[in-house]
Amino acid sequence: MSQKDQNTQILLSSRPQGWVTLENFETVQTSIPEVQEGQILVRNLWLSLDPYMRGRMNDAKSYVPPFQVGEVLQGQAVAEVVESKHEKFGEGDLVTGMFGWEAYTRSNGEGIRKVECDGVPLSYYLSILGTTGFTAYLGLFDVGNLQEGETVFVSAAAGAVGSAAGQIAKLKGCRVVGTAGSDEKVDYLTSELGFDAAFNYKTASLGQALKESCPDGIDLNFENVGGDILEAVLPRMNDFGRVAVCGMIAHYNDETPRPGPRTLPLVISKRLRLQGFIVSDHFDRMQPFVQEMSGWIAEGKVKQRESVAEGIENAPEAFIGMLKGDKMGKQLVKVGEPSA
Amino acid sequence: MSQKDQNTQILLSSRPQGWVTLENFETVQTSIPEVQEGQILVRNLWLSLDPYMRGRMNDAKSYVPPFQVGEVLQGQAVAEVVESKHEKFGEGDLVTGMFGWEAYTRSNGEGIRKVECDGVPLSYYLSILGTTGFTAYLGLFDVGNLQEGETVFVSAAAGAVGSAAGQIAKLKGCRVVGTAGSDEKVDYLTSELGFDAAFNYKTASLGQALKESCPDGIDLNFENVGGDILEAVLPRMNDFGRVAVCGMIAHYNDETPRPGPRTLPLVISKRLRLQGFIVSDHFDRMQPFVQEMSGWIAEGKVKQRESVAEGIENAPEAFIGMLKGDKMGKQLVKVGEPSA
Repeated sequence: MSQKDQNTQILLSSRPQGWVTLENFETVQTSIPEVQEGQILVRNLWLSLDPYMRGRMNDAKSYVPPFQVGEVLQGQAVAEVVESKHEKFGEGDLVTGMFGWEAYTRSNGEGIRKVECDGVPLSYYLSILGTTGFTAYLGLFDVGNLQEGETVFVSAAAGAVGSAAGQIAKLKGCRVVGTAGSDEKVDYLTSELGFDAAFNYKTASLGQALKESCPDGIDLNFENVGGDILEAVLPRMNDFGRVAVCGMIAHYNDETPRPGPRTLPLVISKRLRLQGFIVSDHFDRMQPFVQEMSGWIAEGKVKQRESVAEGIENAPEAFIGMLKGDKMGKQLVKVGEPSA
Repeated sequence: MSQKDQNTQILLSSRPQGWVTLENFETVQTSIPEVQEGQILVRNLWLSLDPYMRGRMNDAKSYVPPFQVGEVLQGQAVAEVVESKHEKFGEGDLVTGMFGWEAYTRSNGEGIRKVECDGVPLSYYLSILGTTGFTAYLGLFDVGNLQEGETVFVSAAAGAVGSAAGQIAKLKGCRVVGTAGSDEKVDYLTSELGFDAAFNYKTASLGQALKESCPDGIDLNFENVGGDILEAVLPRMNDFGRVAVCGMIAHYNDETPRPGPRTLPLVISKRLRLQGFIVSDHFDRMQPFVQEMSGWIAEGKVKQRESVAEGIENAPEAFIGMLKGDKMGKQLVKVGEPSA
């Protein structure tokens, strides 16, 4: 157990109307919970911040229950077991699971798995080797039925999932084109991640940029954004193209929902398939992903950029920045250091 | 050969801007074409009018080339061979294929098949036993993966494809709910076609009507309309639901494309699949459909309502009426009587 005898927690203090603001969060100091039989106490090390959390801030029925006002926010985290009355876990174990936005979390062990830290940075278990990379993998293969030689378009391509999707598609022999919201990000896509082409959606003429960067059309659109980008992508899709709908971040902060793409009737003439997916439906596919991705990481074939906020108290600001697209790559909060 | 030595033809005289009007058509009298070696001349008996033809009136690249201004419009027809210099066809054969909006069509026989007229009205080969019924069948099974006991929602349910889809889904043990644009049509759906529930989308509150008529949600949405109806249906879809996108007639006459559904981001949280399809991609599946549908027709298990315009010169008016939803069931033009 740490010296600290207080737990720092971030609560949802009010539901956002439109854009999330710092006023929607509250930081509180509470006592560290007592561990009962069958429970563990973990000290959080890394917390993952993800766009889907914005949806959980609304009071809407969805695939995960909404966050409750006055309660601790939750997210995927890597943590160290500091006390265990659970047969499966021992003190010092490194684990990953859904924990709170807090320094310490008590858990009954459900949905928690141990992390084998074999030379891979711990944070990778929340990003390229964790749910983020796995989401990219599922969208490309299980949902998108990606075939070698196809053209893949990725929106929010400099984001955590987008940059993984683009790199995996390149490793599978595809032409990969991406869009992002700054020239710096665009440069990162082409010069560091190996994208074949990329453009800044804030300054480009979308239709023209798509035409130039995807001269043979788009076979698979890995959709993270929605809005104007999806509207412009549909006319550029090839017949029988697939849209793997991972996210629609452009819509998440709308106070009144924005219209869908005017080009949606093209799904008929082009025989397109749009399919939404959620990573938690597919955990049976995690093992082949981890195996393949571990190999790529070991061979240095994938890159992973992280934006790290230091300290759990800075999670709200980092979360807002991620929604606004301020940073590149995976947004993480470094909550603590492993003891070993 | 008929007594008449003139061919009545309907040409596209101008491309419609928004709604189609009679001014977009021209009726001309021409001479009946000479038949060369390897060709046939058919006298058209029944012409099918279908919503997709509206798309072909625009100068837009699509799965079928656009109609050309100054040329004869085309459509699926049943016809009688009146002259043959083609080894596969003889005088008096009844055939179906893509012919012109005209009294006589000359053809090289490509894409034409003979019709076995065994007790089934000839017009059925253009409707319930033809492309119309086949479209319904494909949307439900090949695209929609329909399972017994599911709830199926059908828009434009009193239309040709919609009424076929609803009846087939009922025969497969599903709860079937439909919407249409008049109380008369709604009554037809429930009292004659056996729909479990139906409502008038022009007078109902869509969200409320869907909630009441689909208390267990919607598993398969057979989409013919788009627009506000699709927007209201998506929130009522069950997780892992399918949207078989057959048509979006609400959009076809827009001068500037209307926005897509504001509710589209629900495809993610509900893991929905929207998939467009075109009947001509699936003709290899025609045989099992014809076999099953022939059985249902023989047993009197499916009903087929037809709106018949008399005479090819009335095709333009009937086509406009169909786009406006004036009539119920399949819109046909009776061009002539079989000689036998």
